[in-house]
Order: sequence, then structure tokens, then C-alpha cells
Amino acid sequence: MGYAAPVKDMMFVLKELAGLDKVAQLPGFEEATPDLVEAILDEAGKFAGGVLAPLNFSGDREGAKWHDRAVTMPAGFKEAYTQFAEGGWTALDCHPEFGGQGLPRVVSSAVREMWKAANMAFSLCPLLTNGAIEALELCGSPEQKETYLPNMISGKWTGTMNLTEPQAGSDLAAIRTRAEPQGDGTYRIFGQKIFITYGEHDMAENIVHLVLARLPDAPEGVKGISLFVVPKYLINADGSLGERNDAWCVSIEHKLGIHASPTCVMAFGDHGGAIGTLVGKANEGLKYMFIMMNAARYAVGLEGLSLSERAYQQALAYARERVQGRAIEGSSAPVAIVRHPDIRRMLMTMKAQIEAMRALAYVVASAHDAAFHHPDEAERKRNQAFVDLMIPVVKGWLTETGNEIAYLGVQIHGGMGFIEETGAAQHLRDARITTIYEGTTGIQANDLIGRKIAREGGATLKAVVGLMQQTIAELDQAGAELAGLKGSLAKGVAAVAEAGTYIATNYAADVRAVAVGAVPFLKLMGIVSGGWMMARAALVARAKMAAGDADPFYPAKVATAVYYGAHILPAAAGLAEVIVGGGASALAIPEDQL
Amino acid sequence: MGYAAPVKDMMFVLKELAGLDKVAQLPGFEEATPDLVEAILDEAGKFAGGVLAPLNFSGDREGAKWHDRAVTMPAGFKEAYTQFAEGGWTALDCHPEFGGQGLPRVVSSAVREMWKAANMAFSLCPLLTNGAIEALELCGSPEQKETYLPNMISGKWTGTMNLTEPQAGSDLAAIRTRAEPQGDGTYRIFGQKIFITYGEHDMAENIVHLVLARLPDAPEGVKGISLFVVPKYLINADGSLGERNDAWCVSIEHKLGIHASPTCVMAFGDHGGAIGTLVGKANEGLKYMFIMMNAARYAVGLEGLSLSERAYQQALAYARERVQGRAIEGSSAPVAIVRHPDIRRMLMTMKAQIEAMRALAYVVASAHDAAFHHPDEAERKRNQAFVDLMIPVVKGWLTETGNEIAYLGVQIHGGMGFIEETGAAQHLRDARITTIYEGTTGIQANDLIGRKIAREGGATLKAVVGLMQQTIAELDQAGAELAGLKGSLAKGVAAVAEAGTYIATNYAADVRAVAVGAVPFLKLMGIVSGGWMMARAALVARAKMAAGDADPFYPAKVATAVYYGAHILPAAAGLAEVIVGGGASALAIPEDQL
Repeated sequence: MGYAAPVKDMMFVLKELAGLDKVAQLPGFEEATPDLVEAILDEAGKFAGGVLAPLNFSGDREGAKWHDRAVTMPAGFKEAYTQFAEGGWTALDCHPEFGGQGLPRVVSSAVREMWKAANMAFSLCPLLTNGAIEALELCGSPEQKETYLPNMISGKWTGTMNLTEPQAGSDLAAIRTRAEPQGDGTYRIFGQKIFITYGEHDMAENIVHLVLARLPDAPEGVKGISLFVVPKYLINADGSLGERNDAWCVSIEHKLGIHASPTCVMAFGDHGGAIGTLVGKANEGLKYMFIMMNAARYAVGLEGLSLSERAYQQALAYARERVQGRAIEGSSAPVAIVRHPDIRRMLMTMKAQIEAMRALAYVVASAHDAAFHHPDEAERKRNQAFVDLMIPVVKGWLTETGNEIAYLGVQIHGGMGFIEETGAAQHLRDARITTIYEGTTGIQANDLIGRKIAREGGATLKAVVGLMQQTIAELDQAGAELAGLKGSLAKGVAAVAEAGTYIATNYAADVRAVAVGAVPFLKLMGIVSGGWMMARAALVARAKMAAGDADPFYPAKVATAVYYGAHILPAAAGLAEVIVGGGASALAIPEDQL
Repeated sequence: MGYAAPVKDMMFVLKELAGLDKVAQLPGFEEATPDLVEAILDEAGKFAGGVLAPLNFSGDREGAKWHDRAVTMPAGFKEAYTQFAEGGWTALDCHPEFGGQGLPRVVSSAVREMWKAANMAFSLCPLLTNGAIEALELCGSPEQKETYLPNMISGKWTGTMNLTEPQAGSDLAAIRTRAEPQGDGTYRIFGQKIFITYGEHDMAENIVHLVLARLPDAPEGVKGISLFVVPKYLINADGSLGERNDAWCVSIEHKLGIHASPTCVMAFGDHGGAIGTLVGKANEGLKYMFIMMNAARYAVGLEGLSLSERAYQQALAYARERVQGRAIEGSSAPVAIVRHPDIRRMLMTMKAQIEAMRALAYVVASAHDAAFHHPDEAERKRNQAFVDLMIPVVKGWLTETGNEIAYLGVQIHGGMGFIEETGAAQHLRDARITTIYEGTTGIQANDLIGRKIAREGGATLKAVVGLMQQTIAELDQAGAELAGLKGSLAKGVAAVAEAGTYIATNYAADVRAVAVGAVPFLKLMGIVSGGWMMARAALVARAKMAAGDADPFYPAKVATAVYYGAHILPAAAGLAEVIVGGGASALAIPEDQL
């Protein structure tokens, strides 16, 4: 049940597909040379495999425990977190001004993939802290930055995001938490928040809550939401910890998975008001949240990839070791089940999609780096448009696929997969939240077809389709071995183009029918984008082989890409059919006949 | 979190698609008139919804408890079981000679769907008992029948099937449990069995274990397996309970789901030998097991349907009640989420597949009745061939789809779906075993392409394709409303025909490559068979409407069939592509590069 970070494939993707060399040419990223990056990944891999992975199963069994408004983490978590912070892992891509290491996002994403694969429940603590850090970096006052960022970046304090309320779910317009100005620049916060990840725990000395709330004179709906910073312990003028603030964890949820991650109900102001300060401008909270949301959605997408990799490693180890049944073509003795064609098919389905997801995720992270750091404005804009288009795909497709892969991981284990001690079922349980939090797949898909495609008439999508067609043209030159992949990728890209045109053309006139195809389109985009990535990977691998590189990694990469073309891409045309032809039939039945 | 048995759709399928009237003409089934059957379903529905369903969640929370070789069932289970037996529900389709009611399988299948939907963990006890009853009915000696059947059919005693051993899994050739003849017609059994469902519990006064074991002189492998009956308490000559037998539950598993169903490790003969008698002939145990296996596989297929229905009812209720977000086309206030097109799509995906699965399952049960009871031998053979072809499809496709539907049920609940108190996650956890036990989907699929198709050159499959084409011809006469369904069903049937021909043609020469496509073919068969059923249903519904029937059930059935054509069938062509073109690529990579 261990985890070995797939550094080789990570480095391949970083260098050959995600343009690590170009990222290292961006201002501020000059130190991110391949050698340094590989050294970082090696170190992170050791920590992930050696410290975090062994706590994954025990953390699930034991779970976070709530007692008298405090949360006790499972055995080993506090010590692991201390080591994690001491190792500098909390500071990876944070701003150097406050102690961050300022590494590119494409590098920190690869490192984050490891934390999530090793121990998803643990990784949520630094994930949420990072979101809060980013919010304060972007929108905080100089004083707020000075007060909070150094300790958050060093890992001494952690952070949370308090959005959801019982009546609100993902509809932030319905938020009711109030913030009352005290006349001294501070506010008293009153309200209840739910689903607050790491809202309370015992791994760090303070917790910095970012809280959405309404000012007394705020307009209705999303235009009246402001963002506040509310620490668990108030901070004295000298930076030391002061009084306990009126922000309490009143219970934690009993969940399907990520048992070690406390999901808190937070009560603000039940005893006189939780003291906080306004972040940025009044009534601009939603805008700030949206800025962070891209990062959070991307990070959750990574969780789909990470759990897939973990499930794959475990299933592969089991398939190699478990001897059962004769070979289908006949064998003198029972064989390891990895020899059975259906087990092979499942393992290849896992492997091919994992490699495709990783490539897409890192390519998007690389574009994010360029969108923020490229000296040329047109390049920044172009990259930002690509990132904006792809974030819902990374979030939605990676997590949906992650669930399928964790499901296959259980299946490969047979009856043992259903026994909790085996550990395969945990990945399935943990994965189940990823298509839901930070916006369900449906919300991602509506964002994709509405804001990212229809609003701009499909312009960015068309540009991406153009890039995919360039890859198809390159495959055309690559001979018979890649002819099948070329054919299925070409069909897939045609399906994306057809469905994308349908969406851009019909969204305004018939939004309900078009929205029926939103999730199928998100999946189509994911499958075809993944095929595009695998095709690029195959072309690179073939070039390496042609240049005489005998590393067996390269022919395996080509074969995996061919598999992707033969097994994953064929679903594309059917999805386009559903999108273009399935709108009306989904809405036809009166609600009372459902 | 309740369950209301869908009697209306059940009766529609029984009467209009599964030929209940023809079944009632078979010798011995004359009493199974539509009125009687509907009365039975109504009564069963009351018991399922009123008694079993309320124990589903509490049974999961509490779980079966093991202590000192005994198992205590969760609160309420023992009482419910007593009521269940007193109601005659254990005897439904058993032989009248020993107290059974002798109802057709097509009727008992509809009733079983209810038990499984209401409380899958509970339903496994009568399911296993039924398997044991069937084995004894078919293969037991007159004395064994007299000794065991009346008390098993009345529900006074329950039964188990003891196949799997730690080293054996689904490979029965590896079984090591020994049976030593005592010279008095009895045997002493020694060995350990795992994954024994309801191997021990406190709901009935005796448990009748059917155990696979080897005689001292038995040949190696599957040809040396014999079947024994080994009661928990020995039976005195007067039929009363005697000594405790040496068959003990030494532990139960900690599982992902079906927590209320004790999955036992059974130790036979640790204290001198468990006393049993041989069932049927020596070394014929595997043959007897195969006879029962069809019934058990069919029953597990039903579980996929049942959990889908339960998950659907719960998700639909939540979607109607939960108000969140504005309508995508704009609305003055937040709306119930059932109004959101993606929620609609998920609900329709559940509903359409549930109705298709139910139709296929009952049609196969009806063919089973004809296969055993039709006076004409050719009809019996024809029906048996259909059943044999379809059993792996019912088992594999219904359970895989059941998992997808339970997954969607969680998704519709959003964040609440991940909280165990909501109950949606339980269906997902419970469903996860169904694609594994009684033979994994891979094992079903290999059975389908090997024994059921390749071995006979695809003859039965061709006959079924012919029936499907008849339905397509009827759709052709049905006008514009069904034109889309006709088109997608025709494409689907063509995909089945193409893939089936590929399998029949290439199986012998390239079995590994063909077997890579086994599970995709099973899914293709399921999807297209389901489309066939929905097309038949739509034709019946249209005829009712044309005849003036104003029941809104009929236009809803037509619309649901049209949805199936637009959303489910489009996957067929891609699956055929995978089957025909995906064999080599799955096997290309050396095992050490996985």
C-alpha cells in the first residue's frame, strides 16, 4: 500500500510537454532548471512516500476526532505536519517577499500531485492554507500581509476558506453571515459556516479563517458579499498570539471518505462576535473568491490525478502478486492475474488516462505561469484564455476519471477490494468528494459552455482545436505505428469542433437544451485534450527513439498513447451525438412523471 | 430515505414485455394471473417499504457484530426476518412439494427486486438460502430433501454456499477443503472457507451450509470437487435439532458496504471434523454449482437494478426538495435543483437505464420459466439458449450500471451526498460488491464471449440480433417521434453484430486480443439490449395512446425511450471500435513497463 512518486513521467511531462525550459525563462523563475526541479521532485517524493503515505490508511481508520469544540488529528499527523513545514513544503510557490520560494506553478503542481497521492486527507490542510495565502497576497492590506503571510507561508499557521452555509450550498448569493463594523477598523462576524475543511485541528498554533459575510448596508445577492480575515487566536501588536477569537468548531461531519480531514461546522460570533478585518474592498468578496477559485479548482482536479496514480500503483502491485486462474490461452499452472487480458485492459485504462491527465494538468499549470509572468501582454492574455477554458476541464474531467480509475482499482482486487483492510476501497471513498467540492462537475461544465465558450463565441476553443489539428498533422508524418491514434484523435477533434460550434451557436436561443450537454461536453473535451497530450507525448518519444535513445520508457509511452487512441478516444463521437442531439429528450417529461 | 416499490412499471414490464400471460399458460403456473401477480407485488411492496427499508440505514450504521464465534444482527433484523418467513416470502418460487408456492421466476424476480432495493444486506440471507434450496431440489437425495427443504422453504432455517477459500478466489480448481468418509454414509469436512455470506447469524434456528470439498481419492482440479451439506446443528432422526456441528464462524469481514450482511470466515473441522453428507454424485460438485450459478448471477444482476431504483428515488426526492441557484435561463428566485438541466440529465440517465434494466431482467426471467416449463422441447431449448447468453449480460451490465447510477445519486446530492447521514453514499458502497461477487464483470464477459458466443459460432447471438432487427422494423413504421430512437438502435444493433462477428471469427486464433474486448462487448450488449427493450416499451406505449389510453405513464415511457436513444445508445459504436480495434494495443507493453 505504499506510494512511489512517478518522478520519471513527471519530468518527461514537465520537460517535453509543459515547456519547463520556457517557464524557466520567465522573469523570476530563472532558478527552475531541470536539474533543480528534478532534485525537488526527488526530495518531495521521499517525503510523500516515506512520511505521508504510511499515514494514509491509519488516518482513514482513526479519523479526525471532535471533542468539546476541538479536533484531534489521527496519530502521526501533527508530527508529519511539523516535518512538512520544517521541510519548507508550505512555501513552495508563495511570494518570496514573505518567505516563499517563488517556484513556478508547474513545479509546485507536480509536488502537490505527490502530497495528494500520498495522503489526500493530509494534503487538504496545505491546500486550503495556500488558497488563503493567495487571497491575502492578492487582496490583503500591507498590514494584513505582514500580520499573516510570514506565519502562513512558513506553515506555522494554517488557513481556511469559509464560504458555504447550510441554506447556501454552492449558491453564494444566499449567504447570510453578518459583519458588523466596530468603528475601530474591525468587524464582529456572526453566522454559521459548513463544510469547512480543517476549520479546526491541532497541527498548528493558529488558524486563519477567510470568511464571506455581509455588511449591514450590503446589497442583496452576490454583489453584497465581503471577505474578512478572522483568526482563531487574535494577534497582538507584537505579532504574538492573543485572545481566543469567537470562532468555534461546533461539530465535524461523518463522511464517506477523507476521514482524517476534519470537515467542520464553524460557528462565528455565538459568544459576542468573532473579530475580523475586511480584506480588500467592501462587497467585492465574490470577485476575490473567483480569483482563488481557479487555483482551488485546479488543485482539486489534481486530486483526481493523484488518487488515480495511487490506485494504479496499488492495483498493479496486487495484479503482479496475486496468482489465480489459468491463462485464457491455456497454461500449465495458475498465473498472476496481470496476465489476464481484462486485468491488462483495466491497468492500461488506468495508466493511459493517468498519463494523459498528468500531461494536461501540467500544461495548464505552465500556461498559468506564462499568464502571470510572461513579459509580453499578448502572451499573457493568450495563456490566460487557455487556462480559463481548461480549468473546468481539469477540475471536472480529472476528478470524474479519477473516480472511474479508483473504481477499477477496487475491481482488479476482486473480493479483496471490498475489504477495507486492503486499502483499495479508501481511494474510491476519498475520490468521491472530488467531483463535488469546489463546484460540482455540473457547475464546472456550465462554466465551460457558458462563460468560457458561448460568451466569446467559441474563440479560444477554436484556437485550441487549431493546436490539436497541428498535432494531427504531425502524426500524419509519423507513419503506420501512429496511424490508428491519428485517426481516432482526428475523429475526436472533429467531435469537439462540432459540439463546440453547436454550443456557441445555440446557447443564447436554447440554453436549457444546450446545458443538458454540458457535462458530456466537458468529458468530451477532457478525453480529446488527453488524446492530444498523449499524441504529443508519442511524437516526442518516437523522436527520442529515432535519435537512438534505448530507454524502454519511450516505446512504452508510444504504446500507451496508441492504447489511448484505441480505447479512450472512440467514446468521443458518441458524446458529440449526445450533446448535439440529446437536449430536448432530457427535458421532455413533466416533472411529476420523473 | 424510504422506498416505494415501482409496481406500476413492474406490472407494465411483466404484462407488456415479459409475456406474463404466456408464462401463466405454462403447466403449473396457471394461477399467475395478472390480478394475482399485482396483488402479490402490492403486498411485497408494503413489506419492502414498511419493514425492510427502514432497517437499511440503521443496519448499515450498526453492522453485524461478531463475538465468540457468534454473529449478532443489527437491531430489528431478527424480527423482520421472522415476519418475512411468516409472510411466506421465503417460499415464493420454491417447489410446492416441500411447501413452496411454485410461482414463476418472472414473478419472484420482481418481488426480489423489492427486497434488494429496500434492504440489500437483508436480502442476501434469503438469496443464499434460495441458492441452497435450489441445489438440494435439483441434486439432493430424497432423504436430504425431506430433512432440509421444508424448514428452509418455510424460512425456519437458512442456507449458505461455501465455495471460496483464501488461496482460491474465483478459481475453484484450487479448492483444498477435504471430506473424509466415515463409513456410515457421512463425511467429516476439514477446511477454511472465506467470504461466506450469512455463514453465521441469529435470525434462524439452524443454518444449512453447502460446502465444496475434495474426497480423498478425488482427481486434481475442478474434476475432483464434491458438494456436501453441512448443517450448523445436526438433525436428529425425528427432525429435531441435535448437536452443534463443527462448523464455526471464526471472524467476519470489515467491508466497504452491506455492513449488515455478515461475511464470514468459516472453519470446518477444527475440532474433530464437521459432519456432512454428499449431495448428488462424488466429483460432480462443480456441475451442481454451475446449475445454481445462473440463478445466483441473475440475482446479483437484479441487485444492480434494485440499488439503482433506490438511489433514483432518493435522488429524485432530494432534487425536488432542495432549492438552490437560479434557473440557467433566469428566474426571479432560486429554484429546486430538479429544474437544472444537468440534474435533469442525471435523473433521466438513471430512470432510462433503470427501466431498460428492469425490462431486460424480467424478459430473461420469463425465458427462464419457459426454458424449464414449456411443453415443447424446441421452445425450452431456444429459451435456455437465450437465458445462457443473457445471464452474463444481466449480471455484468446491471451491476456496472448500478454502480454508475448510485454514483449519480451521490452527485445529485452535492456535498450532502458525501455525508453518511444522508444515506446516498450507502447505496454506492453497497453497490460496489455487485460487480465482484458471483464472478467479476471480467469473468462474466469471458463467459459471454467464450462459452456463449465463440463456442457456438455466435448462433444464439445472431438469433437475438434478428429479434432486435424486427423491433427496428416496427420502429420504422412508428413515425417521426421514434425516428431518432430507431436510428440509434439500428446503429447499436449493427455494432453488436459487427463486434459479435469479430469475436466469433477471431476467438480461436487470437483469444488474448479478443478477450481484451470482453468487458466492452458485455457493456455493448447491455446497452443495446436495453435499447431494444425500451424500443419495445415505446411501441407498446404508443399503441396504448393510439387506443385512447390517457394515462401519463405512456407518454413518459415514450419520452424515456427517446432519451435512451439519444443519451445511452450513442456509446455503442465507440464500444464496437474498441472491441474490434483495441486488442493488440492493450497487450503491447512489456509487463515491467506497466
